[in-house]
Amino acid sequence: MDSDIRNGEVSVPLPARMDAEVVFIGRLRTPWKDRADCPRQGRDDGPECKIEVDATWRAGLAGLEAYARLDVLYWMDRSRRDLVVQNPARDDRLIGTFALRSPVRPNPIALLNVALVRVEEDGLIIRGLDCLDGTPLLDIKPNRCEFSPKAVAKPIGEET
Amino acid sequence: MDSDIRNGEVSVPLPARMDAEVVFIGRLRTPWKDRADCPRQGRDDGPECKIEVDATWRAGLAGLEAYARLDVLYWMDRSRRDLVVQNPARDDRLIGTFALRSPVRPNPIALLNVALVRVEEDGLIIRGLDCLDGTPLLDIKPNRCEFSPKAVAKPIGEET
Repeated sequence: MDSDIRNGEVSVPLPARMDAEVVFIGRLRTPWKDRADCPRQGRDDGPECKIEVDATWRAGLAGLEAYARLDVLYWMDRSRRDLVVQNPARDDRLIGTFALRSPVRPNPIALLNVALVRVEEDGLIIRGLDCLDGTPLLDIKPNRCEFSPKAVAKPIGEET
Repeated sequence: MDSDIRNGEVSVPLPARMDAEVVFIGRLRTPWKDRADCPRQGRDDGPECKIEVDATWRAGLAGLEAYARLDVLYWMDRSRRDLVVQNPARDDRLIGTFALRSPVRPNPIALLNVALVRVEEDGLIIRGLDCLDGTPLLDIKPNRCEFSPKAVAKPIGEET
Protein backbone atom coordinates (compact mmCIF):
# COMPACT_ATOMS: atom_id res chain seq x y z
CA MET A 1 0.00 0.00 0.00
CA ASP A 2 1.41 3.33 -1.07
CA SER A 3 0.36 5.64 1.75
CA ASP A 4 2.15 8.90 1.02
CA ILE A 5 0.29 11.91 -0.34
CA ARG A 6 2.17 14.19 -2.72
CA ASN A 7 2.00 17.93 -2.96
CA GLY A 8 -1.52 19.14 -3.81
CA GLU A 9 -3.17 15.72 -3.86
CA VAL A 10 -6.72 15.59 -2.51
CA SER A 11 -8.05 12.73 -0.39
CA VAL A 12 -11.78 12.19 0.09
CA PRO A 13 -13.53 10.04 2.69
CA LEU A 14 -14.57 6.64 1.36
CA PRO A 15 -18.12 5.60 2.25
CA ALA A 16 -18.55 3.40 5.31
CA ARG A 17 -20.57 0.93 3.24
CA MET A 18 -19.61 -0.20 -0.24
CA ASP A 19 -22.24 -0.99 -2.87
CA ALA A 20 -21.39 -4.35 -4.44
CA GLU A 21 -18.91 -7.20 -4.26
CA VAL A 22 -16.50 -8.77 -6.72
CA VAL A 23 -15.13 -12.29 -6.84
CA PHE A 24 -11.56 -13.09 -7.85
CA ILE A 25 -11.73 -15.70 -10.64
CA GLY A 26 -8.01 -16.36 -11.07
CA ARG A 27 -4.56 -14.81 -10.89
CA LEU A 28 -2.20 -13.12 -13.32
CA ARG A 29 1.22 -14.78 -13.51
CA THR A 30 3.98 -12.37 -14.55
CA PRO A 31 7.77 -12.18 -14.13
CA TRP A 32 7.45 -9.17 -11.78
CA LYS A 33 7.58 -9.68 -8.02
CA ASP A 34 8.00 -6.04 -7.06
CA ARG A 35 6.15 -2.91 -8.20
CA ALA A 36 9.47 -1.28 -9.11
CA ASP A 37 10.03 -3.98 -11.73
CA CYS A 38 6.65 -3.76 -13.49
CA PRO A 39 6.59 -1.98 -16.86
CA ARG A 40 4.46 1.15 -16.79
CA GLN A 41 2.26 -0.06 -19.64
CA GLY A 42 2.06 -3.57 -21.05
CA ARG A 43 3.46 -4.08 -24.55
CA ASP A 44 2.75 -6.68 -27.18
CA ASP A 45 6.48 -7.40 -27.42
CA GLY A 46 6.67 -8.00 -23.67
CA PRO A 47 7.16 -11.45 -22.16
CA GLU A 48 4.56 -14.20 -22.35
CA CYS A 49 2.47 -14.18 -19.18
CA LYS A 50 -0.28 -16.48 -17.97
CA ILE A 51 -3.82 -15.76 -16.91
CA GLU A 52 -4.60 -18.58 -14.49
CA VAL A 53 -8.34 -19.16 -14.29
CA ASP A 54 -9.78 -20.94 -11.24
CA ALA A 55 -11.24 -24.40 -11.92
CA THR A 56 -14.81 -23.19 -11.33
CA TRP A 57 -14.61 -20.77 -14.25
CA ARG A 58 -12.47 -22.60 -16.84
CA ALA A 59 -15.38 -23.75 -18.99
CA GLY A 60 -15.93 -20.04 -19.64
CA LEU A 61 -12.81 -19.92 -21.83
CA ALA A 62 -14.46 -21.91 -24.65
CA GLY A 63 -14.54 -19.83 -27.81
CA LEU A 64 -11.78 -17.38 -26.86
CA GLU A 65 -9.38 -19.09 -29.29
CA ALA A 66 -11.17 -17.22 -32.10
CA TYR A 67 -9.83 -13.85 -30.91
CA ALA A 68 -6.43 -12.22 -31.41
CA ARG A 69 -6.88 -9.67 -28.63
CA LEU A 70 -8.68 -9.62 -25.30
CA ASP A 71 -9.73 -7.09 -22.69
CA VAL A 72 -8.52 -8.16 -19.24
CA LEU A 73 -9.87 -6.61 -16.03
CA TYR A 74 -7.95 -7.10 -12.82
CA TRP A 75 -8.03 -5.82 -9.26
CA MET A 76 -5.15 -3.60 -8.11
CA ASP A 77 -5.30 -4.82 -4.55
CA ARG A 78 -2.41 -2.70 -3.26
CA SER A 79 -3.74 0.69 -4.32
CA ARG A 80 -5.21 3.36 -2.12
CA ARG A 81 -8.69 4.43 -3.25
CA ASP A 82 -9.26 7.84 -1.71
CA LEU A 83 -7.42 10.29 -4.00
CA VAL A 84 -9.60 12.40 -6.30
CA VAL A 85 -6.80 14.71 -7.52
CA GLN A 86 -3.28 13.41 -8.09
CA ASN A 87 0.22 14.71 -8.73
CA PRO A 88 1.71 11.97 -10.91
CA ALA A 89 4.81 13.89 -11.98
CA ARG A 90 5.58 15.17 -8.47
CA ASP A 91 5.49 18.75 -9.76
CA ASP A 92 2.82 21.47 -9.84
CA ARG A 93 0.53 19.76 -12.34
CA LEU A 94 -2.50 18.33 -10.55
CA ILE A 95 -4.73 15.99 -12.55
CA GLY A 96 -8.10 14.48 -11.73
CA THR A 97 -8.10 10.75 -10.98
CA PHE A 98 -10.40 9.96 -13.92
CA ALA A 99 -8.01 11.69 -16.35
CA LEU A 100 -5.27 9.26 -15.28
CA ARG A 101 -4.82 5.54 -15.72
CA SER A 102 -3.16 5.41 -12.29
CA PRO A 103 -3.99 2.41 -10.05
CA VAL A 104 -5.11 4.91 -7.41
CA ARG A 105 -8.88 5.32 -8.00
CA PRO A 106 -12.11 4.66 -6.08
CA ASN A 107 -12.51 1.25 -7.71
CA PRO A 108 -8.99 -0.08 -8.40
CA ILE A 109 -9.99 -1.98 -11.54
CA ALA A 110 -7.30 -2.10 -14.21
CA LEU A 111 -8.11 -2.59 -17.86
CA LEU A 112 -5.61 -3.95 -20.36
CA ASN A 113 -5.98 -4.95 -23.98
CA VAL A 114 -3.62 -7.88 -24.54
CA ALA A 115 -2.56 -10.20 -27.36
CA LEU A 116 -3.70 -13.80 -27.01
CA VAL A 117 -0.92 -16.33 -27.67
CA ARG A 118 -2.86 -19.52 -26.91
CA VAL A 119 -5.58 -21.06 -24.78
CA GLU A 120 -4.48 -23.74 -22.30
CA GLU A 121 -6.56 -26.05 -20.16
CA ASP A 122 -6.27 -23.90 -17.05
CA GLY A 123 -5.96 -20.44 -18.54
CA LEU A 124 -4.50 -18.26 -21.25
CA ILE A 125 -1.01 -17.38 -22.43
CA ILE A 126 -0.91 -13.72 -23.42
CA ARG A 127 1.45 -10.79 -24.03
CA GLY A 128 0.88 -7.27 -22.79
CA LEU A 129 0.56 -7.55 -19.00
CA ASP A 130 2.19 -4.98 -16.74
CA CYS A 131 1.22 -6.06 -13.23
CA LEU A 132 2.66 -7.86 -10.24
CA ASP A 133 2.75 -11.64 -10.18
CA GLY A 134 -0.32 -12.94 -8.36
CA THR A 135 -2.60 -9.99 -9.12
CA PRO A 136 -6.29 -11.03 -8.85
CA LEU A 137 -8.28 -11.50 -12.07
CA LEU A 138 -11.81 -10.06 -12.43
CA ASP A 139 -12.84 -10.65 -16.02
CA ILE A 140 -11.80 -11.50 -19.58
CA LYS A 141 -13.74 -10.19 -22.60
CA PRO A 142 -13.19 -10.68 -26.32
CA ASN A 143 -11.78 -7.61 -28.03
CA ARG A 144 -14.64 -5.27 -28.89
CA CYS A 145 -13.41 -4.60 -32.43
CA GLU A 146 -13.37 -8.31 -33.31
CA PHE A 147 -16.58 -9.19 -31.51
CA SER A 148 -20.06 -9.22 -32.96
CA PRO A 149 -23.10 -10.12 -30.88
CA LYS A 150 -24.03 -13.80 -31.04
CA ALA A 151 -27.65 -13.38 -30.08
CA VAL A 152 -30.50 -13.30 -32.57
CA ALA A 153 -31.75 -9.94 -33.84
CA LYS A 154 -32.39 -7.92 -30.77
CA PRO A 155 -35.57 -8.80 -28.91
CA ILE A 156 -34.08 -7.97 -25.47
CA GLY A 157 -30.95 -6.04 -24.54
CA GLU A 158 -28.77 -9.04 -24.07
CA GLU A 159 -25.23 -8.19 -25.12
CA THR A 160 -23.09 -5.12 -24.73
CA MET B 1 -32.92 -10.22 -12.89
CA ASP B 2 -33.11 -12.63 -15.81
CA SER B 3 -33.51 -16.01 -14.13
CA ASP B 4 -34.15 -18.43 -16.96
CA ILE B 5 -31.47 -20.84 -18.13
CA ARG B 6 -31.40 -21.72 -21.81
CA ASN B 7 -30.63 -25.04 -23.40
CA GLY B 8 -27.12 -26.25 -22.54
CA GLU B 9 -26.18 -23.35 -20.30
CA VAL B 10 -24.02 -24.22 -17.29
CA SER B 11 -24.48 -22.64 -13.87
CA VAL B 12 -21.76 -22.83 -11.23
CA PRO B 13 -22.04 -22.14 -7.49
CA LEU B 14 -20.89 -18.66 -6.53
CA PRO B 15 -18.60 -18.51 -3.48
CA ALA B 16 -20.24 -17.79 -0.14
CA ARG B 17 -17.74 -14.99 0.46
CA MET B 18 -16.73 -12.45 -2.15
CA ASP B 19 -13.21 -11.02 -2.30
CA ALA B 20 -13.46 -7.24 -2.56
CA GLU B 21 -15.97 -4.41 -2.68
CA VAL B 22 -16.79 -1.69 -5.17
CA VAL B 23 -18.30 1.73 -4.61
CA PHE B 24 -20.76 3.33 -7.01
CA ILE B 25 -19.41 6.78 -7.90
CA GLY B 26 -22.31 8.02 -10.01
CA ARG B 27 -25.06 7.00 -12.42
CA LEU B 28 -25.43 6.74 -16.18
CA ARG B 29 -28.33 8.76 -17.55
CA THR B 30 -29.72 7.34 -20.79
CA PRO B 31 -33.04 7.48 -22.67
CA TRP B 32 -33.69 3.78 -21.98
CA LYS B 33 -35.96 2.76 -19.11
CA ASP B 34 -36.37 -0.89 -20.10
CA ARG B 35 -33.82 -3.51 -21.16
CA ALA B 36 -35.83 -4.20 -24.30
CA ASP B 37 -35.17 -0.64 -25.46
CA CYS B 38 -31.39 -0.56 -24.95
CA PRO B 39 -29.24 -0.84 -28.07
CA ARG B 40 -27.12 -3.97 -28.10
CA GLN B 41 -23.91 -2.01 -28.48
CA GLY B 42 -23.42 1.71 -27.99
CA ARG B 43 -22.69 3.76 -31.11
CA ASP B 44 -20.96 7.07 -31.60
CA ASP B 45 -23.98 8.30 -33.54
CA GLY B 46 -26.30 7.37 -30.69
CA PRO B 47 -27.98 9.98 -28.48
CA GLU B 48 -26.10 12.20 -26.07
CA CYS B 49 -26.14 10.65 -22.61
CA LYS B 50 -24.86 11.90 -19.28
CA ILE B 51 -22.44 10.37 -16.83
CA GLU B 52 -23.51 11.86 -13.51
CA VAL B 53 -20.62 11.84 -11.05
CA ASP B 54 -21.36 12.03 -7.33
CA ALA B 55 -20.23 15.25 -5.63
CA THR B 56 -17.46 13.46 -3.71
CA TRP B 57 -15.69 12.47 -6.90
CA ARG B 58 -16.26 15.44 -9.24
CA ALA B 59 -12.81 16.95 -8.75
CA GLY B 60 -11.52 13.78 -10.40
CA LEU B 61 -12.86 14.95 -13.78
CA ALA B 62 -10.19 17.67 -14.12
CA GLY B 63 -8.10 17.04 -17.21
CA LEU B 64 -10.59 14.79 -19.03
CA GLU B 65 -11.42 17.62 -21.45
CA ALA B 66 -8.15 16.81 -23.25
CA TYR B 67 -9.48 13.45 -24.48
CA ALA B 68 -11.78 12.61 -27.37
CA ARG B 69 -12.65 9.13 -26.12
CA LEU B 70 -13.01 7.51 -22.71
CA ASP B 71 -13.27 4.05 -21.24
CA VAL B 72 -16.30 3.79 -18.97
CA LEU B 73 -16.77 0.93 -16.50
CA TYR B 74 -20.20 0.34 -15.03
CA TRP B 75 -21.96 -2.26 -12.89
CA MET B 76 -24.67 -4.36 -14.54
CA ASP B 77 -26.69 -4.72 -11.38
CA ARG B 78 -29.50 -6.77 -12.90
CA SER B 79 -27.39 -9.59 -14.29
CA ARG B 80 -27.05 -13.09 -12.93
CA ARG B 81 -23.42 -14.05 -12.26
CA ASP B 82 -23.37 -17.84 -12.19
CA LEU B 83 -23.31 -18.90 -15.85
CA VAL B 84 -19.98 -20.18 -17.17
CA VAL B 85 -21.29 -21.44 -20.53
CA GLN B 86 -24.04 -19.58 -22.39
CA ASN B 87 -26.38 -20.05 -25.32
CA PRO B 88 -26.75 -16.49 -26.65
CA ALA B 89 -28.46 -17.40 -29.91
CA ARG B 90 -30.89 -19.87 -28.28
CA ASP B 91 -29.65 -22.63 -30.61
CA ASP B 92 -27.05 -25.39 -30.28
CA ARG B 93 -23.99 -23.12 -30.14
CA LEU B 94 -22.68 -22.96 -26.59
CA ILE B 95 -20.04 -20.32 -25.86
CA GLY B 96 -17.91 -19.69 -22.78
CA THR B 97 -18.81 -16.62 -20.75
CA PHE B 98 -15.39 -15.02 -21.31
CA ALA B 99 -15.77 -15.31 -25.09
CA LEU B 100 -18.93 -13.19 -24.86
CA ARG B 101 -19.55 -9.57 -23.95
CA SER B 102 -22.83 -10.61 -22.32
CA PRO B 103 -23.77 -8.89 -19.03
CA VAL B 104 -24.00 -12.36 -17.48
CA ARG B 105 -20.52 -12.98 -15.97
CA PRO B 106 -19.01 -13.57 -12.52
CA ASN B 107 -18.23 -9.87 -12.13
CA PRO B 108 -20.89 -7.93 -14.03
CA ILE B 109 -18.58 -5.08 -15.01
CA ALA B 110 -19.32 -3.56 -18.41
CA LEU B 111 -16.68 -1.77 -20.41
CA LEU B 112 -17.52 0.79 -23.08
CA ASN B 113 -15.34 3.11 -25.11
CA VAL B 114 -17.34 6.29 -25.66
CA ALA B 115 -16.95 9.65 -27.39
CA LEU B 116 -16.67 12.64 -25.05
CA VAL B 117 -18.91 15.55 -26.07
CA ARG B 118 -18.14 17.90 -23.14
CA VAL B 119 -17.30 18.10 -19.48
CA GLU B 120 -19.92 19.66 -17.20
CA GLU B 121 -19.70 20.66 -13.56
CA ASP B 122 -21.39 17.49 -12.32
CA GLY B 123 -20.38 14.99 -14.96
CA LEU B 124 -19.79 14.28 -18.62
CA ILE B 125 -21.89 14.41 -21.77
CA ILE B 126 -20.94 11.49 -24.02
CA ARG B 127 -22.17 9.39 -26.94
CA GLY B 128 -21.95 5.61 -27.12
CA LEU B 129 -23.82 4.31 -24.08
CA ASP B 130 -26.08 1.28 -24.36
CA CYS B 131 -27.37 0.74 -20.83
CA LEU B 132 -30.45 1.36 -18.74
CA ASP B 133 -31.05 4.77 -17.22
CA GLY B 134 -29.71 4.84 -13.67
CA THR B 135 -27.02 2.17 -14.15
CA PRO B 136 -24.27 2.54 -11.47
CA LEU B 137 -20.91 3.98 -12.54
CA LEU B 138 -17.63 2.39 -11.40
CA ASP B 139 -14.86 4.22 -13.24
CA ILE B 140 -13.86 6.54 -16.06
CA LYS B 141 -10.42 6.32 -17.71
CA PRO B 142 -8.86 8.31 -20.55
CA ASN B 143 -8.66 6.39 -23.78
CA ARG B 144 -5.55 4.23 -23.77
CA CYS B 145 -4.51 5.20 -27.30
CA GLU B 146 -4.54 8.92 -26.49
CA PHE B 147 -3.00 8.59 -23.05
CA SER B 148 0.65 8.75 -22.15
CA PRO B 149 1.89 8.35 -18.57
CA LYS B 150 2.27 11.63 -16.72
CA ALA B 151 4.76 10.41 -14.15
CA VAL B 152 8.49 10.98 -14.44
CA ALA B 153 10.64 8.27 -16.04
CA LYS B 154 9.73 5.12 -14.26
CA PRO B 155 11.18 4.76 -10.78
CA ILE B 156 8.17 2.83 -9.43
CA GLY B 157 5.30 1.08 -11.21
CA GLU B 158 2.88 3.90 -10.88
CA GLU B 159 0.64 4.01 -13.92
CA THR B 160 -0.93 1.37 -16.11
